[in-house]
Amino acid sequence: MIKKYRIGNPIETDSVVIQIDSENEKVPYFQMMEEKKELSLQMEKKDSVFGLGETVRGINKRGYIYTSNCSDDPNHTEDKRSLYAAQNFFVVWGQGRGFGMYVDAPGRVTFDIGYTDLDTFTISFDDFDADLYVVEGESIKEIVKEFRGIIGKSYVPPRWAFGFGQSRWSYMNEQEVREVVENYEEQNIPIDSVYLDIDYMERYKDFTISDERFPNFKDFVKEMADKGIHLVPIIDAGVKIEDGYDVYEEGVQGDYFCKKEDGTNLVAAVWPGKVHFPDFLNEDARRWFGEKYKVLLDLGIDGFWNDMNEPAIFYTEDHLKEVFQELKEYEGKNLDIRSFFHMQGLVGGLANNEEDYRRFYHDYKGKRYRHDKVHNLFGYNMTRAAGEAFERLSPDKRILMFSRSSYIGMHRYGGVWCGDNKSWWSHLLLNIQQMPALNMCGFLYSGADVGGFGADATEDLLMRWAEFGIFTPLLRNHSAEGTRRQEFYRFAKTDGFKNILRLRYALIPYLYSEFMKAAKNDEMIFTPLCFEYPEDDLAYEVEDQLCVGESIMIAPVYKQNATGRYVYLPEQMKLCRFRSYDDYDVEIMEKGHHYIKAAMNEVLVFIRKGHALPLATPADRTEKIDYTNLKYECFQCDQDAYQLYMDDGISR
Amino acid sequence: MIKKYRIGNPIETDSVVIQIDSENEKVPYFQMMEEKKELSLQMEKKDSVFGLGETVRGINKRGYIYTSNCSDDPNHTEDKRSLYAAQNFFVVWGQGRGFGMYVDAPGRVTFDIGYTDLDTFTISFDDFDADLYVVEGESIKEIVKEFRGIIGKSYVPPRWAFGFGQSRWSYMNEQEVREVVENYEEQNIPIDSVYLDIDYMERYKDFTISDERFPNFKDFVKEMADKGIHLVPIIDAGVKIEDGYDVYEEGVQGDYFCKKEDGTNLVAAVWPGKVHFPDFLNEDARRWFGEKYKVLLDLGIDGFWNDMNEPAIFYTEDHLKEVFQELKEYEGKNLDIRSFFHMQGLVGGLANNEEDYRRFYHDYKGKRYRHDKVHNLFGYNMTRAAGEAFERLSPDKRILMFSRSSYIGMHRYGGVWCGDNKSWWSHLLLNIQQMPALNMCGFLYSGADVGGFGADATEDLLMRWAEFGIFTPLLRNHSAEGTRRQEFYRFAKTDGFKNILRLRYALIPYLYSEFMKAAKNDEMIFTPLCFEYPEDDLAYEVEDQLCVGESIMIAPVYKQNATGRYVYLPEQMKLCRFRSYDDYDVEIMEKGHHYIKAAMNEVLVFIRKGHALPLATPADRTEKIDYTNLKYECFQCDQDAYQLYMDDGISR
Repeated sequence: MIKKYRIGNPIETDSVVIQIDSENEKVPYFQMMEEKKELSLQMEKKDSVFGLGETVRGINKRGYIYTSNCSDDPNHTEDKRSLYAAQNFFVVWGQGRGFGMYVDAPGRVTFDIGYTDLDTFTISFDDFDADLYVVEGESIKEIVKEFRGIIGKSYVPPRWAFGFGQSRWSYMNEQEVREVVENYEEQNIPIDSVYLDIDYMERYKDFTISDERFPNFKDFVKEMADKGIHLVPIIDAGVKIEDGYDVYEEGVQGDYFCKKEDGTNLVAAVWPGKVHFPDFLNEDARRWFGEKYKVLLDLGIDGFWNDMNEPAIFYTEDHLKEVFQELKEYEGKNLDIRSFFHMQGLVGGLANNEEDYRRFYHDYKGKRYRHDKVHNLFGYNMTRAAGEAFERLSPDKRILMFSRSSYIGMHRYGGVWCGDNKSWWSHLLLNIQQMPALNMCGFLYSGADVGGFGADATEDLLMRWAEFGIFTPLLRNHSAEGTRRQEFYRFAKTDGFKNILRLRYALIPYLYSEFMKAAKNDEMIFTPLCFEYPEDDLAYEVEDQLCVGESIMIAPVYKQNATGRYVYLPEQMKLCRFRSYDDYDVEIMEKGHHYIKAAMNEVLVFIRKGHALPLATPADRTEKIDYTNLKYECFQCDQDAYQLYMDDGISR
Repeated sequence: MIKKYRIGNPIETDSVVIQIDSENEKVPYFQMMEEKKELSLQMEKKDSVFGLGETVRGINKRGYIYTSNCSDDPNHTEDKRSLYAAQNFFVVWGQGRGFGMYVDAPGRVTFDIGYTDLDTFTISFDDFDADLYVVEGESIKEIVKEFRGIIGKSYVPPRWAFGFGQSRWSYMNEQEVREVVENYEEQNIPIDSVYLDIDYMERYKDFTISDERFPNFKDFVKEMADKGIHLVPIIDAGVKIEDGYDVYEEGVQGDYFCKKEDGTNLVAAVWPGKVHFPDFLNEDARRWFGEKYKVLLDLGIDGFWNDMNEPAIFYTEDHLKEVFQELKEYEGKNLDIRSFFHMQGLVGGLANNEEDYRRFYHDYKGKRYRHDKVHNLFGYNMTRAAGEAFERLSPDKRILMFSRSSYIGMHRYGGVWCGDNKSWWSHLLLNIQQMPALNMCGFLYSGADVGGFGADATEDLLMRWAEFGIFTPLLRNHSAEGTRRQEFYRFAKTDGFKNILRLRYALIPYLYSEFMKAAKNDEMIFTPLCFEYPEDDLAYEVEDQLCVGESIMIAPVYKQNATGRYVYLPEQMKLCRFRSYDDYDVEIMEKGHHYIKAAMNEVLVFIRKGHALPLATPADRTEKIDYTNLKYECFQCDQDAYQLYMDDGISR
């Protein structure tokens, strides 16, 4: 059961699609403190808190403080309160009861979940205007499903997007892309896509192709398509200011860009230097920008990733001028601790400066809003622009789309990736921990950059990460400029990588089937153990195992030099220790604690009681998988226990 | 057995005190590749690598790359290759055999331990000049002891330095310090010292006291001493350039400062703005600077911490000028990805700039050396200056001294703390993992800032960290300006903190005894399980349990929301689950894997077979502990099994 409670005069977000009348009663569970713009809840000792999407720390969010404020911050360390997304749905659960709440407010909201005081959960608002949806149910899963029912169905990508994708900032030309594909083919590692990062464009201009790097792009897209490879270009939020550049000129003419208070277009800067930001919140601008994707669709492109849409801002023209002015006062002075750090802060604080988010405005639903008031809707509406356009431009065929920034509602138009993570073992664990929270908020098509984007990957980290990544719908290996190359074929143990990736393709019938069922039934793919075994106290503390769909539980190894790990089984399960899709041990394991060996190339999969796991013979491409001859690993059932969802993988 | 091998023409470091003749043979184990300035070793599958002191990642260093290059970097994330110290001793061990090696070279040395290739260990040098000490023995512990035998005895602090110390950047005046002590006394939490961070000085000038903040410092030191509280001031490496400031003027007159190539004193900047760096490598300068500590000793101070001695450099005068000049070229331009990041890098790269380390020189043992060639000796020799002076100025009484930067050799003059860590759960684990590696290199008096220095601590993190910190010789709670206050009395569960801290004081007879035995016998206090149980394969993978002295093993909880943890017992042990020194459960636990409950206020201590743990009745100050009435927790022995080392705690 869902009830809605209105605080103040909230700005509409279009995140909820089933309209509910507001209650006149007091908000339940939380105590409201109007003057402090706060809601406060006294937590019980056993209460856990789940949700909030893509944030740092564990599955149980209790013990830290999170601020919904979409941020381009590549250092996802434990102290960060905001990452790229604002996904304000959570469930409080303990002692067999609890509730869910969705805080629908597009500005800054802070969730202090036992940070200031271990037992107090306080939600505070910059503006005390919000729609609160309070969700009740008999279980966490039921609460999630109820909630998902009002926000609309999750985005569904084409099936090929379950194949592996290789990325790099950047493959610099046709030949580099060809070599990537050739290397994968040589190693017999399956692959479905290659990502094009910012350098495929002409000077970072959206919807252009560098003539120099990709002189015959349409032919090249076809050449790759003929090999079964999809090219997936990046699209950035900022439009380069350049006379003669059609997107810029149309945007100016159509008045589609975000404005400063004086009515002129905001000049900010990202990759190409100075840009304007399309006012994605504005319906006309959204429609216009969405149509631009047609340029690439017409060249044969059928997948995109939207980036820099928090929006990331290197600097605004106005702020940069101020900083250069202020810097002059520091020249020739004896800079001590205060003045030096201040001077450094001037320059270091240029990017993603909070003040800049107060320098521009949106024309949204007929009203003008200062950006910071609706900040968390920006990336959402950029991706909505694309999603709405694809419905018009590609009415029959699904298009791959995922975004860095997001807000609930965007889950209907695209997936997300977990942004610019690092080649850290702790970020492999973070990836594991983020997946269920994303699912709770409707983001099913998701995953993190396998091997880590920033910093240098090692072979063992990459292999262990791949061993988890093969279970995430979005499976992409991506890394940043200047870091060690980490394509799977770069390392010595190519057989290990090959077998792990081929295991992914063996799993695609199951993963796709579970994805589609979750999308259709408003369910999750990744669930923490306590969602499945709510009566089991120990299950609430397991932060490094997940159920994936109905049939399996996984326990990834995420520690350097480890050749095994502790696993908690809430009930008897059947362990499959995969070295490859057809080379694996099977063992029935009893309920309880186990230390289980898992060599560097081994993947631990546990079949749940009464469930079956279909496995295909791996193919080199997703669409070449033979569904007629699936093998089933079953535990206390036969293969009929599993309902395989099948479709053509591409029709909407 | 130790053999020495000389490569090239190494610069003497004085880290080894027992002189050994060089062998004429080839370096064993490693293959030397002269042209690449590299040594290379093919590792066996089962080889682990231990040591290298204060670095990131786990106890087993295999799988990453480390560069000895003392660095002031407060972000101790997994990708960092250098922290504050250069401690070039390691042991390679697998299949019951192995060796140790000490790479004595004061410049940059890189240890690639399976980073580039999982099975290859490569040591590379900026300058191919080094003394290599190859240590052989029947066990890891024997190898460590052999090595420690040639580098001289470890520094021994006064016993009161095993008491708890509270720190903050900064307690700003007498009254704040008094309040800290009063709060601890009110809560019955024992405390022995309060640290004075940089603001006790007059404008960050070493060996001065701010008249405004501490108007009667000598009286105040006495007032605190009368309460049994030691004040421990910080000393920074840079000497403020200011006419009339005696330390500056003496330094100029005595020609004690580091010089640029043109012979003028280098002008760098830290807290006070512009400073000169004493040339600590120079014997005369060292003697002069050491004598300066007398100013504070005469005021009653008996403990110090040396900071910023990598040396940290905010900027050099010359570089700052260059940057301001270069910045002008960016004004008014359209800064794109390359030019913007470059411009930001100009300012962001001012601090601790590698180029600056090539701008100055040392007068060392009669020769001139450019700083970068001897960089890793700087902090070592600052602390040596103090240590050598204390032998003259306080010939009978031990003085507390520890340092941020270090090199092997410095362990004779002071301890170390693990620098500017963060309030991260992962840094609690890092603290656990760093302790044995520090011990291997001779650094026995050590510990990390409990609760974390940077970022905001939570009550649960602080409590769990205290539960480990009570086993480290240096037990200090310290936090940075601008972060949440984290004195133990600031949180709700004061009883928990009180009991944990009182448990520390109950353990001091044991901890001090084990420390003194380790110092006298060149042994370790903290050992990884595999050092104690080398036949046990599983022990090699345990990265989160440590033996502490001969009698106990500990298994700290280091995860948010955890109410228990997995523990591996290499043999039968007796668990004491302490809630306080006199409230605890006892249980005999069998060899093998266990999941053991540990509520937030519970400390897991395991008594080893045939060993006894003495426990005192806690006192409020270390020197008030009653040694006549110790209680013993014994496992399969009686209390006579334990040899308690005792002395007056203060005489040298």
